[in-house]
Order: sequence, then C-alpha cells, then structure tokens
Amino acid sequence: MEVLSVCLNPALDREFIIDGFTLDKLNIVSKEKNRMTPGGKGVNVSVVLSHYSIPSIVTGFIGGYVGQILLSELRKYGSLISTSFVRISDETRENIAIADTLSHTLTEINSEGPTVNELDLNNFLKRYEVLVQKVRAVVISGSVPKGVPLSFYGELTKIAKKYRKVVFWEARDEIITESIKVAFPDVLKYDMRRSEKILGRILNTEQEYIQAAKDFVKQGARLVILSYKTVYDFVATEDGVWKFSPKVEIDHSYLLGSGDNFVAGMIFANSKGMCCLDMARYGYAAAVAKTSYIGKEPPSLSLIEEYLGKISTERVE
Amino acid sequence: MEVLSVCLNPALDREFIIDGFTLDKLNIVSKEKNRMTPGGKGVNVSVVLSHYSIPSIVTGFIGGYVGQILLSELRKYGSLISTSFVRISDETRENIAIADTLSHTLTEINSEGPTVNELDLNNFLKRYEVLVQKVRAVVISGSVPKGVPLSFYGELTKIAKKYRKVVFWEARDEIITESIKVAFPDVLKYDMRRSEKILGRILNTEQEYIQAAKDFVKQGARLVILSYKTVYDFVATEDGVWKFSPKVEIDHSYLLGSGDNFVAGMIFANSKGMCCLDMARYGYAAAVAKTSYIGKEPPSLSLIEEYLGKISTERVE
Repeated sequence: MEVLSVCLNPALDREFIIDGFTLDKLNIVSKEKNRMTPGGKGVNVSVVLSHYSIPSIVTGFIGGYVGQILLSELRKYGSLISTSFVRISDETRENIAIADTLSHTLTEINSEGPTVNELDLNNFLKRYEVLVQKVRAVVISGSVPKGVPLSFYGELTKIAKKYRKVVFWEARDEIITESIKVAFPDVLKYDMRRSEKILGRILNTEQEYIQAAKDFVKQGARLVILSYKTVYDFVATEDGVWKFSPKVEIDHSYLLGSGDNFVAGMIFANSKGMCCLDMARYGYAAAVAKTSYIGKEPPSLSLIEEYLGKISTERVE
Repeated sequence: MEVLSVCLNPALDREFIIDGFTLDKLNIVSKEKNRMTPGGKGVNVSVVLSHYSIPSIVTGFIGGYVGQILLSELRKYGSLISTSFVRISDETRENIAIADTLSHTLTEINSEGPTVNELDLNNFLKRYEVLVQKVRAVVISGSVPKGVPLSFYGELTKIAKKYRKVVFWEARDEIITESIKVAFPDVLKYDMRRSEKILGRILNTEQEYIQAAKDFVKQGARLVILSYKTVYDFVATEDGVWKFSPKVEIDHSYLLGSGDNFVAGMIFANSKGMCCLDMARYGYAAAVAKTSYIGKEPPSLSLIEEYLGKISTERVE
C-alpha cells in the first residue's frame, strides 16, 4: 500500500438543491437534486489519489447509520481505497448543504459530530501502528472529533517517524500549534479557510509569513506551505522561501476542494520521486487546475501538467 | 398475527431542533436535538398497536440507505412489530423537520420519494396475498408512491375480502375515490389534513357530510368516518349517523398523530370484540386523548377509557 490517510472526523456530505428554499414551509427535494458523497479531508485526499491510481487506506473513527452510509459510498470507488476505521457508538458527522440557485444562498446544517472515548482512542492507536508499517506515506488531514486531543497529529507522527514514513499534515492552527510540541511532519500545510492565525496570532505582512514559514522549517518541517490571501502560498524548504502565485484569474467560487487536491497532488508527485519545492509546485498546480472548472472531479494529470505553466514560483528568500 | 399494516410509502422522520435557524449560514445541530423515527401512517399505526401489545406485521415498499435505517429503527420496537417489505432500488422518503423554538418556525424538507416499477408491484401483490391470510385485520393507511395506481387500496381490499378479513383504510380523497371503484373497506376513514374534498368536491354544510357518509355506507362500507372542522367527526353505520365532538378544549398544535391513534384505537377495540359505533367511539377517544399532551407516545389504555367520558356522540340521523 502506498498511502495511509488519517481522517479522524469523516463526514457524509449531503447536497440538496432546492430552488426557492423557504423557512417555515414544506420544501420538496427531487431525487436528482439530492446527493450524498463521502467527506472529511482525509477521505477526500484518498478519493483524489484513487483518480491517479494511487492506492490508499483510510482510517479514523466512524459510527452509526451515517458512518455505515459513508463506508458503503466509499466502497463504490473500488479497490484503490480500502478502509480500516475504528467503530464508535456515536453517529458520524452529517453535513447538509441546501443550495438555492435562485436566491444564491447556501444554507448549511452540520451535525456536531461524535465524541470519542479513551477506549476508542487506544483502539485507534493500536490499529494505526499496524497500518502505518504497511505504507510509504501518511497523510493526516482535517478536524479532530471531541475527545481527541489537539496534539494527536503529533502523537501519530511520532509513531510514523519510528518507522521512517513520510508524513503530510493539513490542519488548522489549533491542531498544528499543539501537535508540533510533540513532533513535526515532513510536510506542513496550513488550512486557513476558517482562521488566518498562525500559532495563535494573525500575521499581517508578507515578511511575517516568510518568517513563520522559515521558523517551522528550522524547527523540523522539511516543507512548509502557508496559504496567503486565499490564492497565494508561501512555501519554505531548507533552501529558502518562495511565493507561489497563479498566472491565471481564480474564480473564488470554484475553490472548494482545492486544498485536498493540493495535498493529493504533492503525494502523487512524491510517489514519482519529486521532493520539496518540486512537490509543492505540483500540488499548487493541481490546486489551481482544480479552480478552473466547476465540479468535484479532480483535475486530470495532463491538466495539472498544463497548469505547471500557469503558476509562478518566485523566490523571496 | 393480529394485524397486517400496509404502509406503501413509509418514511424516515427526522427532527432537528435548531434555535435561530438561519438561511445562507452554517447551522449546527447538537446530538440531543437530532432525532430520527420510523414514519408513514401504516408504520405509525403498528407502533401505536405495539404499545397496546397487539402484534402486527408491516409491509410496503422500502429501499436504499434510508430504508435500511427505517428497518433498523423499527426493529427497536421489539417482537410486536415484524416487517416484510418489498425492496426497491429507489431511496425511501426522508422527511426532515427543522424546528426553531425561538422563531416558532417549522421548516420541512421532504424528499420526493421513490418510484415503484411494475416488477415491484407484482412482487408486492404476491407477498401481500401470503401475508393477508395470516392475520385477522388489514389496515391500509397513508400515501402511495409514484408508480402505484390510486386504485391500489381497492385491489388490496379485494384480495383481503377473498379471505374474509376486516379491512381499515385511512387515506386522502384521490385514493379513496379511485379505490372504491374496485372494493369497499369495512372501515373507511378520510384523511382530510391536506384537502377537505370528498369525492372531488368540497362539502359545506353538515347535511352534506351526513349525506356523503350515508352514501358510502349504502355503497358498501360498514363504518365511515369523515373528519369535520378538524376536531369533529361524522360517523355513519348501517344504523344511522352520529356527530362526534370533544367535551374538552383541543390544542390544535397537539393534533400531530391523532389520526393514526384513531385508527389504532379502533383496531384495538375491534380486537376486544367491539364493533361499529363502539369501535369508532374508542378510536375517537384515543385521538382526543392524544391531543391532551405533547409528545409522540400514544395515550395509555386507561387514559383512553377516561376520554370516553370526555367526548359526546350525538345522533344526527
């Protein structure tokens, strides 16, 4: 197996398209406008990898009816994605999005998600240590459910490092802040969709981003990616810092999923022997390519190659 | 087995309590405020009967993930409810109700429900003919999914009559209008929640209701119940026509489910040897008792007995 995707808090993403969605009324959603897809960042990465013929195994916590549906839907992707989740008693998250294409609103109803107890955590750690030995790379991505400490990414990385695996993270600041106290991943990518904070504070100047990226490398990460003003990235390696920019216009409404495509693109590049800056460029090209059309399908490899020419990577330090 | 409940179009009823539910925003629903219960009128009748220790078997069409959840939830009621559904490929209906106790709104999202094909219909008819022979009474209640003719209640009743079973209907006018062209049930109860029409036209005077009820009896029903101004009923048998009224104030916001309790109450009374007017009185007392409190639980038998004294049954013809 190539990759272990850790998705601690998977979700079932449901989309209802209801034109004229109205409060305090009965709204009918037709069969064709009622979709459900497996979600959660780690799951999404595995789905993208399967498009590039990279086999992966997804692990995390799953439970209830929603978890059962999620597993059944994941199985439809075929043998490139295997699953090895720890069963919990609470229901897996269900994220309902009600899109109204008349009023251009998106009303979301997310369930608060499960709580994981200590027994579940220990079961997971045992399973994880077995799984991690079977793979080349580990990606840990997305939120943690209640009951899982924010430092958990660090704990999992410490175990992966014992077996000399390449470790990728994509997470929000609270998780990174606590987890790097335990261990650093090889590739550290910030998820800044909900908060622009880095280590608890908002950075203002480009110089502050550059410094933060350099600091993470100094402390132990081999590649650091900090998103800047949504479409740019500051990328640091031991050799310096770069600012990545698109050479094409980005439609912000097509950004959904581009972070997962970035990570999957890097993993694909890494599997082809690329490292560090080249790997980040490939991931960035995949993310920018993803914003060039509507739809959940990941960009084809040939589209990504094309987009390698549509991005600029300017050395800033 | 006592009763066969035919629920052609079952549903999974989901309730989210979200205070301050807002369009175009992310709304979070907590675990405790996220409920799912089996629904559809025939299913509801079986659930009520199980509270009175009357065993029943539920049949109809079921499919998809939602159908699977519905079956699992029904099993929690224990051995008094058994199920024998025909599996279809479409998803069973899912009815989401978002209750906002701050703004006092109820926003509903109902899926349009499955389509049944001819093979499913034939499979159902075969299964139904086997099941019907095992029971004393058949209740057919609620909507029909797409693909099922409006005359289907009549077809099923014709089969039940071949085996001399007591047949109860609760349905809306379109179904009754088409189905009585094929066969009449013993007990005909109109569901007038969505339309006040009887045989396609709106009746205005009490005299018109009385005449309509008498006509149904003349044509073949043994007991006819026509709801009038929500809380009253005109009840006809071969012996005459009665107007049922509550002697207590009815809180209209507690009416949910009272129709199913009416039917289940009649079936219970019938199982104890009551017939015709006495059976209808028992059902009406159960329905009125149900409106005396919030909550889905059916009224206890002792509460129903108590409510027999809180209703009046005035002979009008």
